[in-house]
Amino acid sequence: MIIKSTENKIFKYALGLQDKKFRNKSRLFLIEGKKQVESIPENWNTRQVFISERYKEGITANFKNITTFSDHLFNKLSATKSPQGIMAVIEKKYYNPKEIIKNYGKFIILESIQDPGNLGAIIRSADAFGIKAVFVSKESADIYSDKTLRATMGSIFHLPVIDNIEIEDILNLMRNEKILIFAASLKGKKHLNEIKLENKSAFIIGNEANGIKSKTENLADILVKIYLPGKIKSLNAAIAASVIMYEMSKE
Amino acid sequence: MIIKSTENKIFKYALGLQDKKFRNKSRLFLIEGKKQVESIPENWNTRQVFISERYKEGITANFKNITTFSDHLFNKLSATKSPQGIMAVIEKKYYNPKEIIKNYGKFIILESIQDPGNLGAIIRSADAFGIKAVFVSKESADIYSDKTLRATMGSIFHLPVIDNIEIEDILNLMRNEKILIFAASLKGKKHLNEIKLENKSAFIIGNEANGIKSKTENLADILVKIYLPGKIKSLNAAIAASVIMYEMSKE
Repeated sequence: MIIKSTENKIFKYALGLQDKKFRNKSRLFLIEGKKQVESIPENWNTRQVFISERYKEGITANFKNITTFSDHLFNKLSATKSPQGIMAVIEKKYYNPKEIIKNYGKFIILESIQDPGNLGAIIRSADAFGIKAVFVSKESADIYSDKTLRATMGSIFHLPVIDNIEIEDILNLMRNEKILIFAASLKGKKHLNEIKLENKSAFIIGNEANGIKSKTENLADILVKIYLPGKIKSLNAAIAASVIMYEMSKE
Repeated sequence: MIIKSTENKIFKYALGLQDKKFRNKSRLFLIEGKKQVESIPENWNTRQVFISERYKEGITANFKNITTFSDHLFNKLSATKSPQGIMAVIEKKYYNPKEIIKNYGKFIILESIQDPGNLGAIIRSADAFGIKAVFVSKESADIYSDKTLRATMGSIFHLPVIDNIEIEDILNLMRNEKILIFAASLKGKKHLNEIKLENKSAFIIGNEANGIKSKTENLADILVKIYLPGKIKSLNAAIAASVIMYEMSKE
């Protein structure tokens, strides 16, 4: 059966998943594209797969629970201009911050990162540099939006990314485990290459335009800045975060 | 006088500047936004300033050669959804690659960077990390497009960014000056943190999806890769370039 009506229940529910609120409530999100859908790891639960009428004919992989939409409806669901014709509904994972923090490693905490492209690129870099988990504050962009997911290049499936956190709560948990808390700040007295980033360390990175809130700065153990000898005295937020994670990956 | 007709000559010429070909031919480009226009350095020649009818009333700075467009026409010229109402036509600078290379420093060479946001972020990082000049290959995105300029955050005015280059020509000039040529490549036998990036060094960074062309790899002295202990084995191109420039800024 091919769904052709915008009044269809499955179509309406699929459309709803473009909305952050509904993603939060349902604990589901969409992944779009052939390569993306085919590389969802087995330990992530794919609730169902949506394909376009045209895509149906070329289908090769073995998907369970496939729903076919007319090309017209599928285009309405797609976040891209020329959709490939396949997307999957995936269940978000529950992560226990306490457990994750207890098992140590190196962590990144993001405060109010607003740009989905930056957020996704940071998650990708965190994965590449072997960061143990990424904590994302409440006021940040949604980690499950199409733009963010696209920029993660699949990394969202590789390491715990815990969203909607209260920075203070996470820092308290970390303090209990004696994790050293660094924060990127222009007020930093130490440069990034002067500090030692050992296995029990976390780094807070702030908003693109305003950096870290002073309240959060006060909660950090050490404020750190990146040495910038040039004329412009700031970096793109995803780049600043990645340079920090590059240093974290060294030791 | 307020220009209201789409048939007006100045309007047509302004509109033409949205096109890469016309920017190349005229050696002019547009900078949009109040802060951006007001912070154009004196040693860059501003040919003229365009403002919207609405903006006219709030004008504070002393601009020469102002042309006012109706809000309707200005919106057509603007690259943004809610234009601030001001843009400037700026003359591109002529750079002499030979002179720049002769005066040493650290250089970045970009091969086929396709995303304007990546290109702009790389130029911003190059400025921040004190790189002497950025060379941009012919097949790359335009450094003078609105999206690229926006991502540079004004850095385009701070260091020589030389576009439309032939990589081979630049490498020949560098070889004459005994500059050591590194290239970021997955084939690299050395890791970034194992090499010494001294004052006479240049780093080639390749395309987002395909990296550096094998022809170009063969022209480099040393192939280098970034150590990535995580699951994903690649970084966003602007991030890879910036991590490299961060290391270059150290010595």
